[in-house]
Amino acid sequence: MELTVYLAGQIHDNWREELEKKAKAKNLPLIFVAPQTNHDRSDNIGEEILGKQPSNLYKDDAASDINNFRTQVLMQKADIVIALFGEKYKQWNTAMDATTAITLNKPTIIIRPESLIHPLKELSNKANVTVETVEQALDVIGYIFE
Amino acid sequence: MELTVYLAGQIHDNWREELEKKAKAKNLPLIFVAPQTNHDRSDNIGEEILGKQPSNLYKDDAASDINNFRTQVLMQKADIVIALFGEKYKQWNTAMDATTAITLNKPTIIIRPESLIHPLKELSNKANVTVETVEQALDVIGYIFE
Amino acid sequence: MELTVYLAGQIHDNWREELEKKAKAKNLPLIFVAPQTNHDRSDNIGEEILGKQPSNLYKDDAASDINNFRTQVLMQKADIVIALFGEKYKQWNTAMDATTAITLNKPTIIIRPESLIHPLKELSNKANVTVETVEQALDVIGYIFE
Amino acid sequence: MELTVYLAGQIHDNWREELEKKAKAKNLPLIFVAPQTNHDRSDNIGEEILGKQPSNLYKDDAASDINNFRTQVLMQKADIVIALFGEKYKQWNTAMDATTAITLNKPTIIIRPESLIHPLKELSNKANVTVETVEQALDVIGYIFE
Amino acid sequence: MELTVYLAGQIHDNWREELEKKAKAKNLPLIFVAPQTNHDRSDNIGEEILGKQPSNLYKDDAASDINNFRTQVLMQKADIVIALFGEKYKQWNTAMDATTAITLNKPTIIIRPESLIHPLKELSNKANVTVETVEQALDVIGYIFE
Amino acid sequence: MELTVYLAGQIHDNWREELEKKAKAKNLPLIFVAPQTNHDRSDNIGEEILGKQPSNLYKDDAASDINNFRTQVLMQKADIVIALFGEKYKQWNTAMDATTAITLNKPTIIIRPESLIHPLKELSNKANVTVETVEQALDVIGYIFE
Amino acid sequence: MELTVYLAGQIHDNWREELEKKAKAKNLPLIFVAPQTNHDRSDNIGEEILGKQPSNLYKDDAASDINNFRTQVLMQKADIVIALFGEKYKQWNTAMDATTAITLNKPTIIIRPESLIHPLKELSNKANVTVETVEQALDVIGYIFE
Amino acid sequence: MELTVYLAGQIHDNWREELEKKAKAKNLPLIFVAPQTNHDRSDNIGEEILGKQPSNLYKDDAASDINNFRTQVLMQKADIVIALFGEKYKQWNTAMDATTAITLNKPTIIIRPESLIHPLKELSNKANVTVETVEQALDVIGYIFE
Repeated sequence: MELTVYLAGQIHDNWREELEKKAKAKNLPLIFVAPQTNHDRSDNIGEEILGKQPSNLYKDDAASDINNFRTQVLMQKADIVIALFGEKYKQWNTAMDATTAITLNKPTIIIRPESLIHPLKELSNKANVTVETVEQALDVIGYIFE
Repeated sequence: MELTVYLAGQIHDNWREELEKKAKAKNLPLIFVAPQTNHDRSDNIGEEILGKQPSNLYKDDAASDINNFRTQVLMQKADIVIALFGEKYKQWNTAMDATTAITLNKPTIIIRPESLIHPLKELSNKANVTVETVEQALDVIGYIFE
Repeated sequence: MELTVYLAGQIHDNWREELEKKAKAKNLPLIFVAPQTNHDRSDNIGEEILGKQPSNLYKDDAASDINNFRTQVLMQKADIVIALFGEKYKQWNTAMDATTAITLNKPTIIIRPESLIHPLKELSNKANVTVETVEQALDVIGYIFE
Repeated sequence: MELTVYLAGQIHDNWREELEKKAKAKNLPLIFVAPQTNHDRSDNIGEEILGKQPSNLYKDDAASDINNFRTQVLMQKADIVIALFGEKYKQWNTAMDATTAITLNKPTIIIRPESLIHPLKELSNKANVTVETVEQALDVIGYIFE
Repeated sequence: MELTVYLAGQIHDNWREELEKKAKAKNLPLIFVAPQTNHDRSDNIGEEILGKQPSNLYKDDAASDINNFRTQVLMQKADIVIALFGEKYKQWNTAMDATTAITLNKPTIIIRPESLIHPLKELSNKANVTVETVEQALDVIGYIFE
Repeated sequence: MELTVYLAGQIHDNWREELEKKAKAKNLPLIFVAPQTNHDRSDNIGEEILGKQPSNLYKDDAASDINNFRTQVLMQKADIVIALFGEKYKQWNTAMDATTAITLNKPTIIIRPESLIHPLKELSNKANVTVETVEQALDVIGYIFE
Repeated sequence: MELTVYLAGQIHDNWREELEKKAKAKNLPLIFVAPQTNHDRSDNIGEEILGKQPSNLYKDDAASDINNFRTQVLMQKADIVIALFGEKYKQWNTAMDATTAITLNKPTIIIRPESLIHPLKELSNKANVTVETVEQALDVIGYIFE
Repeated sequence: MELTVYLAGQIHDNWREELEKKAKAKNLPLIFVAPQTNHDRSDNIGEEILGKQPSNLYKDDAASDINNFRTQVLMQKADIVIALFGEKYKQWNTAMDATTAITLNKPTIIIRPESLIHPLKELSNKANVTVETVEQALDVIGYIFE
């Protein structure tokens, strides 16, 4: 039984590569999908496909059309969603992806540092499991295969 | 990850073949499905299977039974829907297929020429992405696989 | 038992007033809701609330945000949807509203002139009932209360 | 037709009172519901009902049980959701409430200052309408009653 | 708490009147809705609204458009469905209405004579309760109000 | 694209074998599933697994538990449902299976002889397509693959 | 805003009356519905309506038809479900009602004594809130109206 | 056609191994999934992944997060659910899993000894089939493949 895991969350470090490497080391039968992790590509995709927009507002809106399209396709394929929150930035996309997953009854794991316990408390409470490290998230998924 | 794409829209030129050829050239793992594109076959299918009907109204109704059956089967298999609007004809089937897809939460791309911006504005607004060319629609889908 | 009826369709003549007057004459316990029928107001509502947009494309998109918001609120309240197609214009909003209603299992009546039988055949086939006059549509609704 | 509006968002100023006063001035037939806006009460509600918890993590989790219960009851009653983002704090509850509303097909308006266009772009794109002021949000709702 | 009860089933005797009279005698707070019980009106409604059809097949199809429209509106309002099967006729509408109700999670009671136990066994098995008399069906509903 | 077809309907002649043979002759990529077609096995399955029941009522109820379980598993796998009505018997299981399929949005074809037009009119009207012969039903399905 | 609360759980003491009295004392606008709390009536209702059954198994099955019918009607009306577990008996109906409510997205409160923490841990974890006393459950509901 | 079967229920004897062995002996094309059956691992999994918790309540809650995550993933993959009740313990997880499956329209078989007829009567009544032995449950599933 192969499971598809959507990796929502920040794109400012290589946590996805780390997680995928550890999953492979444990021989877990997982397929990983994710948002566009090249930040510039993600911000510019609207103009790169649709052409120059009249201002940043419209550039952002054109990019988000296409980013949301991508996420919707991939999340519908996912059996599990992991959402990682880091300490920097607003990360509203991560909150949006985690909430979408939960509302659609996708089993969902949140990874967040201890410092974010308070601001994330209602969302953590709705997710299935909240952990602090990538390693713990994989342990939770690995438990399915025991 | 292979995706199935339903190609709704006009059947008066060969845009589907063009799109499929470009997809193949880009090695995108896509399977394409579509309505009946032989216009005469589509109009006559009711009488060809069920026999002569008493008037054009009933001939049309018999054909649409079978065309709607086909579309329902294939759209339920689709991960993505592309709906292309051209400048001629009423194209209410295209509007119907796009709306059905959107209401069923199928990720949906509309292709339409600049001249149709105004009459299509509410439907465009509900679709995930609206573009002007087949090439751009493929770029949007290709972005999923980056 | 009071029923709410959403009146989708063209806004270029006074068919809604006619229908409401006839419903009142028959003492049918119906509440009518509808899209914005002042054409200019509907086209300009985006700029009137959000301010000047950089071009017609963005003006249209801003208007359609708000028109779609209105339709979504009111259609969710509706027990029945009537969609009237006239002979002019693309009327893709009418096709979109009728299809949304059908996909959401709202009982739906289409009113269209004989000249539109062929281009509307697949959508007519999915609606519950297709008639040619406002009077007939009311007869269908009146039948519920017999 | 009376509509119930859930007011998600920050609880650090009196925007809800302002909005309710303006709605009353316009005679809009709206009922407003909202999360607990007394910040201390919201943070302490878990311990106030369930008793002292072993640490802040558990205090937060107990509070969020009850805050999420309240939100779920009230949002299920809502016809419309308004989510206001301010410039301070993480506001992940606001993002969670807006996303839940959108995923459940509740018509949703986002209010955010211009400075938040970029970080909110994907969520804005999924909402029905995004505006910058409370007044504009009310204009959008008022448009339903024209 | 007032409940709406849809009375599906044969229209060849006055069981609905009998049931409504008994409900009134017991002061049960029930509102009853039902299909058209005037058999001729039900068979002819298509032609009476839409005009002469080319043959019995089309006359029947036109009538069923409107009968199904009526049933869909009223069943969506129903809290409970009662379906009564008698010994004569095919009664496929009764089977269709009972099955629709069950599939939509409407609490459903079947009334049927002992002679129909065998042919109705799978449908009975899916309904909530199967009884033999109108009186028993009312007892089951009355039990809700104890 | 392989499609699974559930063959609901009478078990008193070999129409399923005939249909499967013709499908094979046309090289249609179809997998067929069906209810238990051994009539005695179907009637006795309850007692054969659960032991002697106190009367025919309970024997029938035990059998229908298991027949309904089988149908639910297989219909959930089906992309298409064909329901064939013959001239004999009540065939309420066929009506139940067709209605379940339609209510679950499974594309559905009804096969019935001309003599059953009138009693089946409302159910026919809800199905996608109604035909008179097994050959025609296969033509409708074959049309998907053109 | 009036809320309907379904009170699932044991019927061996008068906790419902106690809870309703306290709700009234706090002026909470709540309507309470519940299963049949007369234990004998609940066990015998099948035979009382349908007549003598051949053994206890069938007597129980007849009763449960009607008890499940009642619960389904009332729970569909409920905005909130409270499920109280006591220390005696299996109480599988309470577990079933709580789980049904949770799966249907009804906001759910579990009341259970400390001694039941361990056996109820997975179900508690899925409910919105778990408390130990009737008073606490009312506090949670009262919080909605602050 | 391969089917996935979720085996809910007690983990105090080896009934799952017995059932899987018999399924293999009959060549039934079944894949079995189940909750964690190592009782200690199931009770301790929260602390083993998340670290020491402040008391048994929190240890249990942490474990149930992860057990519920596992069950949700696996049950979403299941075509059929079998829930076995034994005579010991509260077994509320079994009741919860069976009810979740039934509410999600998963075809469900309950296995229980004769002694549990009365306390399980309402849940049995909602399941598709109730049997007394593992052998009978397999006979029911085997019947699908006849």
